[in-house]
Amino acid sequence: MGRIVQKFGGSSVADAASIKRVARRILNAKLAGNDVVVVISAMGDTTDELMDLALQVSPQPKARELDMLLTTGERQSAALLAMALSDLGAEARSYTGSQAGVITTGKHGDARIIDITPGRVEQALDEGNVVIVAGFQGVSQTTKDVTTLGRGASDTTAVALAAALGAEYVEIYSDVDGVFTADPRIVPGARHIPVISYEEMLEMAANGAKILHLRCVEYARRENVPVHVRSSFSDKPGTWVKDLPASSTDTEGSKMEQALITGVAHDRTEAKITVVGVPDRPGEAAEIFDTIARNEINIDMIVQNVSQVASGRTDISFTLPSSDGRKAIEVLNAAQEQIKFEELLYDDQIGKVSVIGVGMRSHPGVTASFFRSLADADINIDMISTSEIRISVVVDADQVDAAVRAAHTAFGLDADGEAVVYAGTGR
Amino acid sequence: MGRIVQKFGGSSVADAASIKRVARRILNAKLAGNDVVVVISAMGDTTDELMDLALQVSPQPKARELDMLLTTGERQSAALLAMALSDLGAEARSYTGSQAGVITTGKHGDARIIDITPGRVEQALDEGNVVIVAGFQGVSQTTKDVTTLGRGASDTTAVALAAALGAEYVEIYSDVDGVFTADPRIVPGARHIPVISYEEMLEMAANGAKILHLRCVEYARRENVPVHVRSSFSDKPGTWVKDLPASSTDTEGSKMEQALITGVAHDRTEAKITVVGVPDRPGEAAEIFDTIARNEINIDMIVQNVSQVASGRTDISFTLPSSDGRKAIEVLNAAQEQIKFEELLYDDQIGKVSVIGVGMRSHPGVTASFFRSLADADINIDMISTSEIRISVVVDADQVDAAVRAAHTAFGLDADGEAVVYAGTGR
Repeated sequence: MGRIVQKFGGSSVADAASIKRVARRILNAKLAGNDVVVVISAMGDTTDELMDLALQVSPQPKARELDMLLTTGERQSAALLAMALSDLGAEARSYTGSQAGVITTGKHGDARIIDITPGRVEQALDEGNVVIVAGFQGVSQTTKDVTTLGRGASDTTAVALAAALGAEYVEIYSDVDGVFTADPRIVPGARHIPVISYEEMLEMAANGAKILHLRCVEYARRENVPVHVRSSFSDKPGTWVKDLPASSTDTEGSKMEQALITGVAHDRTEAKITVVGVPDRPGEAAEIFDTIARNEINIDMIVQNVSQVASGRTDISFTLPSSDGRKAIEVLNAAQEQIKFEELLYDDQIGKVSVIGVGMRSHPGVTASFFRSLADADINIDMISTSEIRISVVVDADQVDAAVRAAHTAFGLDADGEAVVYAGTGR
Repeated sequence: MGRIVQKFGGSSVADAASIKRVARRILNAKLAGNDVVVVISAMGDTTDELMDLALQVSPQPKARELDMLLTTGERQSAALLAMALSDLGAEARSYTGSQAGVITTGKHGDARIIDITPGRVEQALDEGNVVIVAGFQGVSQTTKDVTTLGRGASDTTAVALAAALGAEYVEIYSDVDGVFTADPRIVPGARHIPVISYEEMLEMAANGAKILHLRCVEYARRENVPVHVRSSFSDKPGTWVKDLPASSTDTEGSKMEQALITGVAHDRTEAKITVVGVPDRPGEAAEIFDTIARNEINIDMIVQNVSQVASGRTDISFTLPSSDGRKAIEVLNAAQEQIKFEELLYDDQIGKVSVIGVGMRSHPGVTASFFRSLADADINIDMISTSEIRISVVVDADQVDAAVRAAHTAFGLDADGEAVVYAGTGR
């Protein structure tokens, strides 16, 4: 008898009818002979509504109390789901994150899972129950206060529980059929990806694919927990995210045709700040990024322009989540005397487009093909960043769709398409 | 520096503005030099809304899961109140019942407090915090599951915490100014009662006065915790419920003029069942009430009619909460073969009117005065029940108001009224 963990998102439990439908799906997994642990998000817009309520009461709600408030959403859906399962004849018990042994750091609003002590969950499983765990939450190891793991982190709870319980795999249910080669709303010919490696999924998640939370994929890779991303509205197979050692290199005798590029991701949530006229001396760039880091703002790409010899000054551009834009501008302006820059430019009308695939490790010319496809579509590249299995460019916001389509076509990802690789040096 | 416990009901925290108003009131108590512990109910109609949601999901929600669901309401209001207090500059921390050490029996939906282990509350107070505790809930001593204490039991949480923390007194805030000699909506001349004994308040609560929960008054009496019932919408003094040994008898030299009757309570929530044609043999009445008790239905008054010698049969009437009426009829009908009654009559168009006062212990004639006042108002008495400090009658539902007014006037409770005590034997 297998042991599996299923996770359902807020859109899967938006109302009473949805909760009952999810209960039937869980029942089927139980009847198929599995021990089932379910991690559940808050119903529909509950978390947003609770946040609105908090802001009505306080302009800057205390983080500890916000966690106390927001965690009630998942507790409600967990209890309701357990009721629905009992009606179907499956004994079920709901647990808060704390009761389920989700031990975290003490950083309210963005805690990390340190450990899982699943004693109560194990016992409830042994007694034949379906176990429902409220996602997104845990209990601080030091203060014993209720914590949240950051939004979207119910996926991480599911993977962490699966690792602690020795589950065979995790099913992550949402309202889409899995991972596609590009966003089907932009590329109608985008194809469903049946299997993807942890590494590629990490790059997809880090570069705008919203299907899985980055931290969840990291956790799954570290613990080697296979994750099946699928829709709660159909029975179609979704996308398996798992260890794919054979596909990461073109091993001799491999029968599988390896695509150069697995998918094209895009992200419109970033903004670009350009620090103009920074004295071109050692330490000036460090000063800028120290200031940013001290304020807990994460940056993504960085470009330092070629120095203008005449003035002895240079310009430095970087991207960051546009939600942190205002704060970054404020702290940089406050530090103008130390950094001695001339002015700040801010642009949130940008987008990032990334091509991702382990295949590019062994194939030169991918970069050239990507850039040529953009040039052919009259798209100007503003910034560039690469990893071993990813190439990202920043373009104008209104050219993101065209860039995604151009890359998708160029790498043969369209249905019946064929990759066009331009000759090139390096990648 | 004193230590006090304040409890605010759902109507006091119905929305964000109310929560902020309550926060200011708590702040004032803190600034006056008190250590303050606050017990809070769920916002407005939250509990009813959650119950509706549960019934949409399941026709008979599991009690354990219902407790998990309903307790989120108080957790939300507790967290929001703590946020509001922090904004005012008072450090505040919210705790669930479980975190505050409210240990209960395991009966979901109607658990009893067994013990309070207030270690975390004590520590938070020592650190200078206002402590906010989610009312109405605790944790089962045996299963460690979340429990609820039954509706309205946040009052009991407050008193239990006060006893465990050695607090000076408890303030129970609601939307009324305290206890009155009768419901002011029925008797416009009803007077505010500044002080009332535990015993009298117990009888008031048990006989329809909704101002305090019966179990809360029992707890306060047992632990000798003074309770101040007052309005969260004004600064007027409310009603003190406390030990009043001197007033329970007319001690020599007492300067206080003792009213015969402290108040008139009424209750429209009961129904009457008459079991017609019960064989008049020993054990038949026991059979009826065993059947009722096995089904956990509480009954109030019982009257056995004079036996009809010719038939060898008698009629037995009793009252019970009308919410249990259907169930009682069902279980009695199912037991008709054993009990051998002829038929069942059901009447929920009744009301109970009670006069309450420790003064009646030492004054004969109270019963006669009460019944005479009803007779003068052409009100027919259907059933009668008494305790040492209370006389209750059942009357037609549409005569309840008139009966309350008649008794209120007869015992001199109207503003500037004077008690008329008829001569009588016994009471």
